[in-house]
Amino acid sequence: MTLYYSVLIIGGGLIGSSVARAIKQNNLAERIYMADSSEEACRVLRTLDIADGVDTDFNPFIGTADLVVLATPPGIMKQIGPTVVQAMKTGAVLTDVGSIKYDLVKQFETFMRSDLHFIPGHPIAGTENSGPAAGFGELFEERWCILTPPENTDETEIARLTELWEKMGSQVALMDARRHDIVLATTSHVPHLIAYTLVGTAIDMETVTANDVVKYSAGGFRDFTRIAASDPEMWRDVFLQNKEGVLEVVDRFIEDLSALKRAIRWDNGETLMEHFSKTRDIRRRIIDAGQDTDKPDFGRE
Amino acid sequence: MTLYYSVLIIGGGLIGSSVARAIKQNNLAERIYMADSSEEACRVLRTLDIADGVDTDFNPFIGTADLVVLATPPGIMKQIGPTVVQAMKTGAVLTDVGSIKYDLVKQFETFMRSDLHFIPGHPIAGTENSGPAAGFGELFEERWCILTPPENTDETEIARLTELWEKMGSQVALMDARRHDIVLATTSHVPHLIAYTLVGTAIDMETVTANDVVKYSAGGFRDFTRIAASDPEMWRDVFLQNKEGVLEVVDRFIEDLSALKRAIRWDNGETLMEHFSKTRDIRRRIIDAGQDTDKPDFGRE
Repeated sequence: MTLYYSVLIIGGGLIGSSVARAIKQNNLAERIYMADSSEEACRVLRTLDIADGVDTDFNPFIGTADLVVLATPPGIMKQIGPTVVQAMKTGAVLTDVGSIKYDLVKQFETFMRSDLHFIPGHPIAGTENSGPAAGFGELFEERWCILTPPENTDETEIARLTELWEKMGSQVALMDARRHDIVLATTSHVPHLIAYTLVGTAIDMETVTANDVVKYSAGGFRDFTRIAASDPEMWRDVFLQNKEGVLEVVDRFIEDLSALKRAIRWDNGETLMEHFSKTRDIRRRIIDAGQDTDKPDFGRE
Repeated sequence: MTLYYSVLIIGGGLIGSSVARAIKQNNLAERIYMADSSEEACRVLRTLDIADGVDTDFNPFIGTADLVVLATPPGIMKQIGPTVVQAMKTGAVLTDVGSIKYDLVKQFETFMRSDLHFIPGHPIAGTENSGPAAGFGELFEERWCILTPPENTDETEIARLTELWEKMGSQVALMDARRHDIVLATTSHVPHLIAYTLVGTAIDMETVTANDVVKYSAGGFRDFTRIAASDPEMWRDVFLQNKEGVLEVVDRFIEDLSALKRAIRWDNGETLMEHFSKTRDIRRRIIDAGQDTDKPDFGRE
């Protein structure tokens, strides 16, 4: 039996189109509809044949949807939020796949209807590629999905949405929205900001031509360029909307980097050694937890 | 026909043992000898059967070697340098595989003999794993190897060592030692320092338990932990010996990070967007140059 009769996914990029594929592959809804404001994205989505209806406008589908999934960049979610909420049918569930939860909850609370179920979500999955064609149905397998339902959310609906993610292959965790944001600032947002920064620094290095950076990138740098190739619009929104969490972690990072810089300047090998030995252990734990492969270089070919 | 009669590799870790394997697999020398100060490393090297002789002491082999490859941590190279140089036979070639070239050249110049050929080298290859068992003969394939011979080095010997690396699968570039160090500070040393720092910051975040960091590491963080799992002793030496290059690039990086931090604090989305769009292009060029795979997430399994 399917979990929802009709699902509407707004935003057909990497994540939105992967959700559609995963729902279809696992037979979790009778009807899947997709809306994306880009004509070109809609054209691609239609050729992919993962939805029963695709349109640049969500209005034709929203009135009958049991589950609405917001999968646009975070900035767009805020813009369309009031219209989406107003058009949904009584008893339906509204969720999203955005990387920031507290800012979204704060915004949506101002116009949320009491006859809807609002359960924000965040699948910790993705690749550096974007757009409808980049998605795939297995993207969420063995990945975490964090749900941050406000207090007093209907338990049955939380359980149903949890089951949806589990059937798409994820493990689900429930978490307070603020806590989510500080955890993600550490494990995702700041790593992305740092990767973007370093790649920019390398490009700007006057003494190093861009060609040398490309040529000798295998020494570590190329890993950063993968992260820094992620969707710019989405990440701009992430940094602006999780400002507090990001700035806190960045400040700590700069303090720590300054301490290591000082150790280098003063030839303090012991401090470096102590620091570097400590960080090695966490890699083992990530591999043991099934969150990465232990093949050298990620098993790159 | 082999390129050298007898090769001695001092240091049997990831790189040293991979050089031995690659020389053996491609039949580039008649005899391969290895020395490693660790009894345990020697035991493993013997079981791997990649050398004609293995010993904790290099003295039994060095007097007859046509090519001596230093593959120890950079700090050890300095320590054993004078003894190695003194024991080598007239006309033999001394090279190394270390990540810093200028500091090494400066040191070795003080005791170099005029009847030897000194051609420092640096293969831009490696994985996060260390030790003799982690090596493999294909490690250098389609990777760059930079040679930094001092002025007036014998052209025939440069050509012969170039051919050795090419036959092991690498492309060879000749470069001034100082320039090498600033390029590598950008593409390798500072990326490693930043990865070590970020992983340390994450471990220390009081509000984030280590378990949460591991659990949700798939959002970008896990890429940093791979880099920060590299050999601590080697990297300590790298940072201390390329102090000048590393500090210059780190300072630029901190300036750039502060500018992005400011843009986040003041909601300056345009600055962020501009920066993030610029960095995307370099990823494409690295893939086009054959220095990384274009599979999402590096083709991780």
